[in-house]
Amino acid sequence: MYTLTVRDHVMIAHSLPDPFFGPAQGLHGATFVVEVTWNRPDLDEHGVVIDIGAATTALRAVLDDLDYRNLDEHPAFAGRLSTTEVVAAHIAQRLVENIDTAPFASVQVLLRENPDAWASYTHDLTGA
Amino acid sequence: MYTLTVRDHVMIAHSLPDPFFGPAQGLHGATFVVEVTWNRPDLDEHGVVIDIGAATTALRAVLDDLDYRNLDEHPAFAGRLSTTEVVAAHIAQRLVENIDTAPFASVQVLLRENPDAWASYTHDLTGA
Amino acid sequence: MYTLTVRDHVMIAHSLPDPFFGPAQGLHGATFVVEVTWNRPDLDEHGVVIDIGAATTALRAVLDDLDYRNLDEHPAFAGRLSTTEVVAAHIAQRLVENIDTAPFASVQVLLRENPDAWASYTHDLTGA
Amino acid sequence: MYTLTVRDHVMIAHSLPDPFFGPAQGLHGATFVVEVTWNRPDLDEHGVVIDIGAATTALRAVLDDLDYRNLDEHPAFAGRLSTTEVVAAHIAQRLVENIDTAPFASVQVLLRENPDAWASYTHDLTGA
Amino acid sequence: MYTLTVRDHVMIAHSLPDPFFGPAQGLHGATFVVEVTWNRPDLDEHGVVIDIGAATTALRAVLDDLDYRNLDEHPAFAGRLSTTEVVAAHIAQRLVENIDTAPFASVQVLLRENPDAWASYTHDLTGA
Amino acid sequence: MYTLTVRDHVMIAHSLPDPFFGPAQGLHGATFVVEVTWNRPDLDEHGVVIDIGAATTALRAVLDDLDYRNLDEHPAFAGRLSTTEVVAAHIAQRLVENIDTAPFASVQVLLRENPDAWASYTHDLTGA
Repeated sequence: MYTLTVRDHVMIAHSLPDPFFGPAQGLHGATFVVEVTWNRPDLDEHGVVIDIGAATTALRAVLDDLDYRNLDEHPAFAGRLSTTEVVAAHIAQRLVENIDTAPFASVQVLLRENPDAWASYTHDLTGA
Repeated sequence: MYTLTVRDHVMIAHSLPDPFFGPAQGLHGATFVVEVTWNRPDLDEHGVVIDIGAATTALRAVLDDLDYRNLDEHPAFAGRLSTTEVVAAHIAQRLVENIDTAPFASVQVLLRENPDAWASYTHDLTGA
Repeated sequence: MYTLTVRDHVMIAHSLPDPFFGPAQGLHGATFVVEVTWNRPDLDEHGVVIDIGAATTALRAVLDDLDYRNLDEHPAFAGRLSTTEVVAAHIAQRLVENIDTAPFASVQVLLRENPDAWASYTHDLTGA
Repeated sequence: MYTLTVRDHVMIAHSLPDPFFGPAQGLHGATFVVEVTWNRPDLDEHGVVIDIGAATTALRAVLDDLDYRNLDEHPAFAGRLSTTEVVAAHIAQRLVENIDTAPFASVQVLLRENPDAWASYTHDLTGA
Repeated sequence: MYTLTVRDHVMIAHSLPDPFFGPAQGLHGATFVVEVTWNRPDLDEHGVVIDIGAATTALRAVLDDLDYRNLDEHPAFAGRLSTTEVVAAHIAQRLVENIDTAPFASVQVLLRENPDAWASYTHDLTGA
Repeated sequence: MYTLTVRDHVMIAHSLPDPFFGPAQGLHGATFVVEVTWNRPDLDEHGVVIDIGAATTALRAVLDDLDYRNLDEHPAFAGRLSTTEVVAAHIAQRLVENIDTAPFASVQVLLRENPDAWASYTHDLTGA
């Protein structure tokens, strides 16, 4: 199995208005460092998992829709909490809508929210 | 599959009294940076893998028993060597005794002992 | 010259409502990783620059006032922009109000806002 | 499952002479930070996955053949492009030729080429 | 004193054809992670050291001339060795030619060539 | 001003038997990541601050005397506490005894003891 990962980041505001989240109920924010890992069993004819430029551009296009935004007002998160896990799944969903996923077994989106905490979502692409 | 990781660290002394370990046979020490990753197939009703606060508190409780200690005198390692791998498995075992593991597929404990070496233990929680 | 640095972080929301700041004019947020470095020419009677526990507690007390907050509504930034540089200077000012600074030549507060950008303020304590 | 990872690095020149690679078609170079992760279901009689010294020495021996070299003139890459993925697979192949792989389920070689991109190859050793 | 740092990277080939450099005499390469720190005693009217966008764009313009190049054939290094220190000074020189340096006390260019080695050049801008 | 930094690490045990140090009074340990920065106003005839190989070898020679040791029993720390600051100054002192320091303005030794704390000692070499 081969993987290729590209990294970028966004700076967003949001709140998590449920008592479960304690101090994070109020409006605050985060720098999310985003690492997207594409997995496939074999390399393509150029000897790569995916072109780094294409992977970087696809990620940036998805992140442009989130960067410097208040996620509380973003339609993608209307009616649900924009937890780190939910944002990771959202980014993965948007990526697979815009990339030909036929060669890939899975894509993982990992978000680092601070030096001591990070979360990920892995989207299975095998059709299994 | 979703994951949530929390990170903390301990500073311990120990020795590895077996000729196999060369210079590490003598009493020395380590800063172990500890990364605990909880895995589950779906999110809970709050849209998270596990509450970060709860995961952090549970990890700190396990680490308080190790921090600033000489592991050669710690009962958990009596009769066996406190290698990085063994300490990782010990931390995982203690965590699963104190957390309701029903929602989780696995938990991984990774210990970084220096910039050039780290080890992990993954505890399967599927009952498979 | 000796230094001792402690690190912590905060997760805040804010806006920078001046056309100069382009996309950062809107409400967004940041994880600020905060590194505070105390400088002094000689060590104290315990052989340290400052007790790590005391330095950590003093920093956490200052950060508790910022963490999980919208800085646009924080009185410390009323009438001025909460740029990374301004927040760094604010933290330094609050620290020197709460620590006996007699032994120190300076204190530096460095804020990392994302992997590709960080800023600092150094507060001179020599009375020069 | 247990893992043990050791890290080292090489500094190489190469070109990727295919229009697919855009500016990387010309002769350029990279620092590849190399992370090798050995996986096995149980620990050996010393309580480790693999001796860190042995894992480090085996990796250094493989890297000595690449370090400070122009990969365009290296026989291992004659007739094919030395993409990060291909170099990762080459290192894994050389490692399993020189280590008794019976105890291991897999070995992963991950190459970080810059702070924003990395690739890996995982070599299955289960005979499955 | 305030500072603002922006980070980027380049991937270059070069050789250091002097016996002093041992194995680095041959053609090899490096990923240079480049950190540029602007220093000034006071903030500007926007509360910043320098606009991050402007600092990033200025750095990228300088790096575009080096990225994916063989420095042995680059006119800036004709007749001299492109050591990490010399490349750092070259980048600083090019930056101060393109930025109005009146407000700044100094600019530092730091190049990380691998996890275990880095070098910097600080350009004094006080006219002292 | 130019700098060149090399990095290595040691794994040591020690205790800090003074009530001032709280839980660190007992025997524990640390991984100290050691960063040594050489400063000089101009480059030498090879275009470098110091040969990286020479700087690395000199540091390793000093660290070999500390690595995998219990500093409580090390003669260099007899009668004094081996705080991070004191160990940093010890390493600097040993380095300047073994390197021709004529070209250098200063050398800084920085020790990272965990992700959230580090200390340094800067040895002035100007004779000022």
